[in-house]
Amino acid sequence: GYAKLDHHRVLRSGFGETVFCQGKPDPYLVEIYKRFYDRDGEVLGTRASKEQFELVRSIVPEVQYDPISGILKVERPGKEKKGCIAVCTGGTADIPVAEEAAQTAEYFGCYVDRIYDVGVAGIHRLLSQRERIAKANCIIAVAGMEGALGTVIAGLAESPVIAVPTSVGYGASFHGLSALLTMLNSCANGISVVNIDNGYGAGYLATQINRLAVK
Amino acid sequence: GYAKLDHHRVLRSGFGETVFCQGKPDPYLVEIYKRFYDRDGEVLGTRASKEQFELVRSIVPEVQYDPISGILKVERPGKEKKGCIAVCTGGTADIPVAEEAAQTAEYFGCYVDRIYDVGVAGIHRLLSQRERIAKANCIIAVAGMEGALGTVIAGLAESPVIAVPTSVGYGASFHGLSALLTMLNSCANGISVVNIDNGYGAGYLATQINRLAVK
Amino acid sequence: GYAKLDHHRVLRSGFGETVFCQGKPDPYLVEIYKRFYDRDGEVLGTRASKEQFELVRSIVPEVQYDPISGILKVERPGKEKKGCIAVCTGGTADIPVAEEAAQTAEYFGCYVDRIYDVGVAGIHRLLSQRERIAKANCIIAVAGMEGALGTVIAGLAESPVIAVPTSVGYGASFHGLSALLTMLNSCANGISVVNIDNGYGAGYLATQINRLAVK
Amino acid sequence: GYAKLDHHRVLRSGFGETVFCQGKPDPYLVEIYKRFYDRDGEVLGTRASKEQFELVRSIVPEVQYDPISGILKVERPGKEKKGCIAVCTGGTADIPVAEEAAQTAEYFGCYVDRIYDVGVAGIHRLLSQRERIAKANCIIAVAGMEGALGTVIAGLAESPVIAVPTSVGYGASFHGLSALLTMLNSCANGISVVNIDNGYGAGYLATQINRLAVK
Amino acid sequence: GYAKLDHHRVLRSGFGETVFCQGKPDPYLVEIYKRFYDRDGEVLGTRASKEQFELVRSIVPEVQYDPISGILKVERPGKEKKGCIAVCTGGTADIPVAEEAAQTAEYFGCYVDRIYDVGVAGIHRLLSQRERIAKANCIIAVAGMEGALGTVIAGLAESPVIAVPTSVGYGASFHGLSALLTMLNSCANGISVVNIDNGYGAGYLATQINRLAVK
Amino acid sequence: GYAKLDHHRVLRSGFGETVFCQGKPDPYLVEIYKRFYDRDGEVLGTRASKEQFELVRSIVPEVQYDPISGILKVERPGKEKKGCIAVCTGGTADIPVAEEAAQTAEYFGCYVDRIYDVGVAGIHRLLSQRERIAKANCIIAVAGMEGALGTVIAGLAESPVIAVPTSVGYGASFHGLSALLTMLNSCANGISVVNIDNGYGAGYLATQINRLAVK
Amino acid sequence: GYAKLDHHRVLRSGFGETVFCQGKPDPYLVEIYKRFYDRDGEVLGTRASKEQFELVRSIVPEVQYDPISGILKVERPGKEKKGCIAVCTGGTADIPVAEEAAQTAEYFGCYVDRIYDVGVAGIHRLLSQRERIAKANCIIAVAGMEGALGTVIAGLAESPVIAVPTSVGYGASFHGLSALLTMLNSCANGISVVNIDNGYGAGYLATQINRLAVK
Amino acid sequence: GYAKLDHHRVLRSGFGETVFCQGKPDPYLVEIYKRFYDRDGEVLGTRASKEQFELVRSIVPEVQYDPISGILKVERPGKEKKGCIAVCTGGTADIPVAEEAAQTAEYFGCYVDRIYDVGVAGIHRLLSQRERIAKANCIIAVAGMEGALGTVIAGLAESPVIAVPTSVGYGASFHGLSALLTMLNSCANGISVVNIDNGYGAGYLATQINRLAVK
Ligand SMILES: Nc1ncnc2c1ncn2[C@@H]1O[C@H](COP(=O)(O)O)[C@@H](O)[C@H]1O
Ligand SMILES: Nc1ncnc2c1ncn2[C@@H]1O[C@H](COP(=O)(O)O)[C@@H](O)[C@H]1O
Ligand SMILES: Nc1ncnc2c1ncn2[C@@H]1O[C@H](COP(=O)(O)O)[C@@H](O)[C@H]1O
Ligand SMILES: Nc1ncnc2c1ncn2[C@@H]1O[C@H](COP(=O)(O)O)[C@@H](O)[C@H]1O
Ligand SMILES: [Mg+2]
Ligand SMILES: [Mg+2]
Ligand SMILES: [Mg+2]
Ligand SMILES: [Mg+2]
Ligand SMILES: [Mg+2]
Ligand SMILES: [Mg+2]
Ligand SMILES: [Mg+2]
Ligand SMILES: [Mg+2]
Repeated sequence: GYAKLDHHRVLRSGFGETVFCQGKPDPYLVEIYKRFYDRDGEVLGTRASKEQFELVRSIVPEVQYDPISGILKVERPGKEKKGCIAVCTGGTADIPVAEEAAQTAEYFGCYVDRIYDVGVAGIHRLLSQRERIAKANCIIAVAGMEGALGTVIAGLAESPVIAVPTSVGYGASFHGLSALLTMLNSCANGISVVNIDNGYGAGYLATQINRLAVK
Repeated sequence: GYAKLDHHRVLRSGFGETVFCQGKPDPYLVEIYKRFYDRDGEVLGTRASKEQFELVRSIVPEVQYDPISGILKVERPGKEKKGCIAVCTGGTADIPVAEEAAQTAEYFGCYVDRIYDVGVAGIHRLLSQRERIAKANCIIAVAGMEGALGTVIAGLAESPVIAVPTSVGYGASFHGLSALLTMLNSCANGISVVNIDNGYGAGYLATQINRLAVK
Repeated sequence: GYAKLDHHRVLRSGFGETVFCQGKPDPYLVEIYKRFYDRDGEVLGTRASKEQFELVRSIVPEVQYDPISGILKVERPGKEKKGCIAVCTGGTADIPVAEEAAQTAEYFGCYVDRIYDVGVAGIHRLLSQRERIAKANCIIAVAGMEGALGTVIAGLAESPVIAVPTSVGYGASFHGLSALLTMLNSCANGISVVNIDNGYGAGYLATQINRLAVK
Repeated sequence: GYAKLDHHRVLRSGFGETVFCQGKPDPYLVEIYKRFYDRDGEVLGTRASKEQFELVRSIVPEVQYDPISGILKVERPGKEKKGCIAVCTGGTADIPVAEEAAQTAEYFGCYVDRIYDVGVAGIHRLLSQRERIAKANCIIAVAGMEGALGTVIAGLAESPVIAVPTSVGYGASFHGLSALLTMLNSCANGISVVNIDNGYGAGYLATQINRLAVK
Repeated sequence: GYAKLDHHRVLRSGFGETVFCQGKPDPYLVEIYKRFYDRDGEVLGTRASKEQFELVRSIVPEVQYDPISGILKVERPGKEKKGCIAVCTGGTADIPVAEEAAQTAEYFGCYVDRIYDVGVAGIHRLLSQRERIAKANCIIAVAGMEGALGTVIAGLAESPVIAVPTSVGYGASFHGLSALLTMLNSCANGISVVNIDNGYGAGYLATQINRLAVK
Repeated sequence: GYAKLDHHRVLRSGFGETVFCQGKPDPYLVEIYKRFYDRDGEVLGTRASKEQFELVRSIVPEVQYDPISGILKVERPGKEKKGCIAVCTGGTADIPVAEEAAQTAEYFGCYVDRIYDVGVAGIHRLLSQRERIAKANCIIAVAGMEGALGTVIAGLAESPVIAVPTSVGYGASFHGLSALLTMLNSCANGISVVNIDNGYGAGYLATQINRLAVK
Repeated sequence: GYAKLDHHRVLRSGFGETVFCQGKPDPYLVEIYKRFYDRDGEVLGTRASKEQFELVRSIVPEVQYDPISGILKVERPGKEKKGCIAVCTGGTADIPVAEEAAQTAEYFGCYVDRIYDVGVAGIHRLLSQRERIAKANCIIAVAGMEGALGTVIAGLAESPVIAVPTSVGYGASFHGLSALLTMLNSCANGISVVNIDNGYGAGYLATQINRLAVK
Repeated sequence: GYAKLDHHRVLRSGFGETVFCQGKPDPYLVEIYKRFYDRDGEVLGTRASKEQFELVRSIVPEVQYDPISGILKVERPGKEKKGCIAVCTGGTADIPVAEEAAQTAEYFGCYVDRIYDVGVAGIHRLLSQRERIAKANCIIAVAGMEGALGTVIAGLAESPVIAVPTSVGYGASFHGLSALLTMLNSCANGISVVNIDNGYGAGYLATQINRLAVK
């Protein structure tokens, strides 16, 4: 096949390769998913549609699908979840991206604490969760529209904050651009940013950081 | 002269005409400032440079200049300051714009409460000022970079919030664009936005709202 | 459930919480709508589709739906409508956004005067409505394309103007960006701006201002 | 010399070539200006600085310079000014661009009526000039910031309107982009747009239109 | 009805009101179309879909529809077509916009000469049409992608050129933005620009210019 | 003074407050710098000019200034530098931003390994440094223009990568926007981004991560 | 017909005319395709849909269609493939654009070497193909998201590199803008860029370059 | 020193390393320039200021400086200039960028034919140079403002065209963005684009292509 699989990756980085399902033609998706599965015994797929789930299930019957996050995975049972990553969202509409982040981190062996719907327009909601936030080695802040959640959290917590802008909003949100710029311009310390809606990237990076802490 | 003065304006709107000094050629500035002064006995000028101050002072010796805000005014003494407008800033760099807003509102007869350097990256600074904010008929929130101040205030207060993005920042702040978008996408209720660095516009609008409340 | 409802909000701000329906997964929408209804006896929903109306009606049979504005509400009868808010549009295509604003303000207890299709390309249409505009405590100006309506109204009226850019237009309107920039750069005094198509936000803010005037 | 002069242009189009002075290295400017002068006996230069004026005057002593518009010209005396072009501005800061347009049209033999400082934030100023506007064969509307002047004029007049956005403004005016977009999205009929600050282009085009009318 | 019809328009401007069909809800469209028809005996509609055609035909059976341009009209027979407007396109994909312009000008009584598929990538195609272009009182240049057609024509012709950028293209054409910027920055003289895909606006303006020439 | 100092910050986060010098009016800068110095015995200032250095030195004679990075600091002697942070640049023009990052991390107690001028246009330069990169707990990748350095490093290393876009470049680099977008769209895993030229932010965040590893 | 076919093109440039199928109305497509076929005995069509394939096949039964690239062609058999063009992609999602480029170059008589899925996030994949790259007269680098492939290749190879940004990606990839900017800002030498997704343009240009080398 | 020189480059690519002078701190510039000079006996520097020229001359007295192009070079005498590259500009203001391209190509051993001031607004100027254009192995088209020159040339010539957008213009030229987009969207075949004002890059790439032809 055309795709060049990266056989040494698990050894090199401690992470298996992930299948980005969105937009992959059916035969490519099936071939790649199957090869990873045969090689590693487990696979993480992201941004899968329901149709892709059914397609893959016809070849790999034990595959599991979460329609909220689009995660399509086979996971080895009995993984220990170590350390702590907090995943926070501004609103309920940000939950799909947050779940992509949370389930990615769990797949790679992290303990995740979900703190959803704590947007800064009602600041008491966030303040009442301060203790849970303080316990995390890394915090993922997922927010759309104005995207100010990361800044307020970074101001409260000592741990690194990964901000994920989402495309939630309308009009001058420009499909996540507003939240992205807000996060890049954060006047708090200890915050960095990934691409709009990139829950996977945030979960991966948080895992790296969490591993450093629990190592 | 080319400029068409608006003689009925005070009667129509309850506000005198203001002189936007920035970029006005010297002879125009002097002529307009003098005409307003002769007609009304007081004048509000904004965005004046030190050179413009000295130029106008040579014709109108009683003129007063504030180099922080750029306000260049002659004000009738003994004005009563009514009601209450709170003017808040995220950082110290936002103070020039905040002062333009505050002094505009004072010139038009409002009482102003200044609450500066209460940005959301250290949320306790803002929370400790809740009572002062709650007393205002209208709140002006001035912030650059990420611009999230207005949202948090609007979530805490019952009164209308006017958000003023500032051009403070660098890189992806894009001269105030980031703060502007943040404010337009606020997920709080009861907030609207004026142009980047437009302290004057915010002060004027807050005056209109404050007058409705004290009338 | 994941969503954190804001139980003290009515007490704190004098406004109940609103349900932003657009994009909410069906089970979330139904659960939230029902909970608000049970708690408050009335609910305001915005940006609902016809399908969402039918879904909610199966649980809350007295719910009412306006397909033009997308408002999905249960409203306690006999509310007194106080003060006066004028809602103006440039064209007929702006009416859906204007109705979101108008019905929001009415739901929160304001009297609303609708002045539609008075765009500045035929200025006599607006000039013939000057008396109605002069009576309002607050004016909402809804316009797409060039978006100049707010400026002309703010020049005619003494009351604060809330400008709502709409996504009406094509080509270089860039989905409302042109109207948004026009409104932010208004050379009139006493005008501020909300997000593109944000009729709800304008109606809410106008209510706050109108309450100050009638209090 | 590197520059390729266009010797047949006057014959072909009825207009001589113009020298765009801004940014031209001194030797090029002098050489080109002198060559045009020797060939045609008159020359129109635009966007010249005071230094360029003095440089050219040392070679062509009869050259005349207007520091407001930047026009640097030698004009044959006794030209008849035909037809009528109205040049309108929103504010006094737009006058430099308006003068570039007006003097260009005059140079090419048109009668120009200047109607300055009639911006739409005080609509009565424009309405009181309706008769002058109605007499023009073509109207040039010069405005920055929100740029709505052209639309209101096009709604009042029968003749074609050329809208010239200016870079006057700050913040979200984005150096004339806001005015440009407003003008492109005009909901009036009979209006077209030239580049930001392009008074020359508007004056040239208006001359073409005016010639058709008086021919 | 909400819409405010403009009864004096024909008298004032010499043009009837046009119906912009796109996006109009069915009942509004039918009511407005019918009212214009009853008042004037003819109507010009633009940007109509096939469904809108069928809807209007059920009320106004003599209505005619052109699926290429989207023009939906009833036209009084025997109109004399005066003067000359040339309508040029860069490619075949620009023809729908060109036809909107051409049929608008014809409806308002102009003679139109169509010169299609003469884009500048094969310059001989345009050069071989120089004589037809030279005969027009006004030239409409319709082009997408790079949009250079208007400049080359303006350099060849003496008459005013109205450039219409189209949304034809992909990638960095950004839905017509590239062509729009090209046209605004034309280094030719005697050219102005209307909104992306705005054939109607170009046809209307060309009519005004052509009338000046034939009057 | 207006500024609200954050006295509990060291306790809360383990970091002292930093003075962002750029744009601070002289009296504010001196007052704030002195107050921090008196309280903490050491201070980190960023983005200071030579003039600001001289100003502060007149009050705090032991202050040290690095003209490359703009760091203006008083540092307690004998700090132990723990762990390892690698700071890499694409070219020599990126060194000022890299030094801001490196010196920030050193000030906060980290060991820093500088790997400069290893841009991807000559990939062997980077490949020959693989072992040094592999030893770091966190890698800061500083690059302008195309900004691809972070991706290649993230593909080689196991540790988290913080990408810092710089404003180095011209034309379509748009003052760092190109590098910023490249980094946000990285197809590598384990990478996040801070604002354009924000070396301080990267150094701070890297310190947090490095502390987790050495704790 | 409206379209002006370019009969001398093959003679002038050594290339036949190509049919850009996307968006062409059915009757135009069929007419143009047939005319080219009758004149030249072979035709290259690009960006064809499956429906267009079936339509054309009903008239030209020997037409061949590749659903990945959208190429719809009739090709004279027995063409010799000369020289060497390498076509590289960053990922599998870029293959459709790469195939448009590769098949275009093959149609015009070039030998093509496909090197797919060698993106810079796993640099060893590219390094292991250095010898194949070194053999090409011209290299086409096709990549989306961050788009850094072209730079690394240009740094490794002596031959000219044509970079093709693709619209593959999401969020801040802005439909290919990120990759486009990366490529324009390449800090390598010997690289130029074509429009987003423009495989055809890259294949054509590579053919011109390859012909110079083999001539 | 920090900079990592690329000693194998001449062998690998047939080109020496070039010094990009703009923005290099004085000590770095001198060190790098001297090292290249000592190693290779000749050096090409680009974008040098007059001050940098004087600085380098104090160390390398035989260095030569062209203030138009900013080229600062020591060149071995008696180089043979092979093949042919045509360098064309739209106007005289584009000459500095064109000279950067031309002198780069000459330095690397190409014969260059300069064809300046042949912009498409006066198409006869370009058409009269067709024969010179036809003789080149590669054509560089340098243009600002609308940037259409490359398309017209690519339509006339068989050889590859490298288009260089320049930052010449004002207003909606957006510092070269307009010309850049025009060139990327060219509807001609056989054209690619480099960064705004990147004459060096065009000259380098043209050299690679010309070498293939003369080899
Ligand atoms: N049409 C609207 N546009 C913007 N914000 C809205 C709109 N309708 C409701 N909201 C806000 O959205 C909140 C509810 O958001 P959610 O929790 O996502 O349902 C409400 O409390 C309002 O603040
Ligand atoms: N102010 C202006 N803005 C835009 N174009 C101008 C202006 N003044 C002159 N021009 C055009 O620039 C051409 C001269 O350009 P150049 O050859 O660079 O001097 C003239 O023939 C006009 O077409
Ligand atoms: N170079 C820098 N870039 C971004 N933020 C900085 C920088 N240096 C300091 N800061 C932040 O700015 C805060 C001080 O801002 P201020 O109160 O305006 O002095 C510090 O506490 C840091 O969070
Ligand atoms: N995929 C493509 N992308 C860009 N341009 C193309 C493509 N395919 C063909 N072309 C160009 O489009 C021309 C045909 O355009 P048209 O006359 O609209 O069919 C061809 O001669 C090529 O120059
Ligand atoms: Mg923190
Ligand atoms: Mg509130
Ligand atoms: Mg007003
Ligand atoms: Mg009109
Ligand atoms: Mg012309
Ligand atoms: Mg990695
Ligand atoms: Mg190379
Ligand atoms: Mg060609």
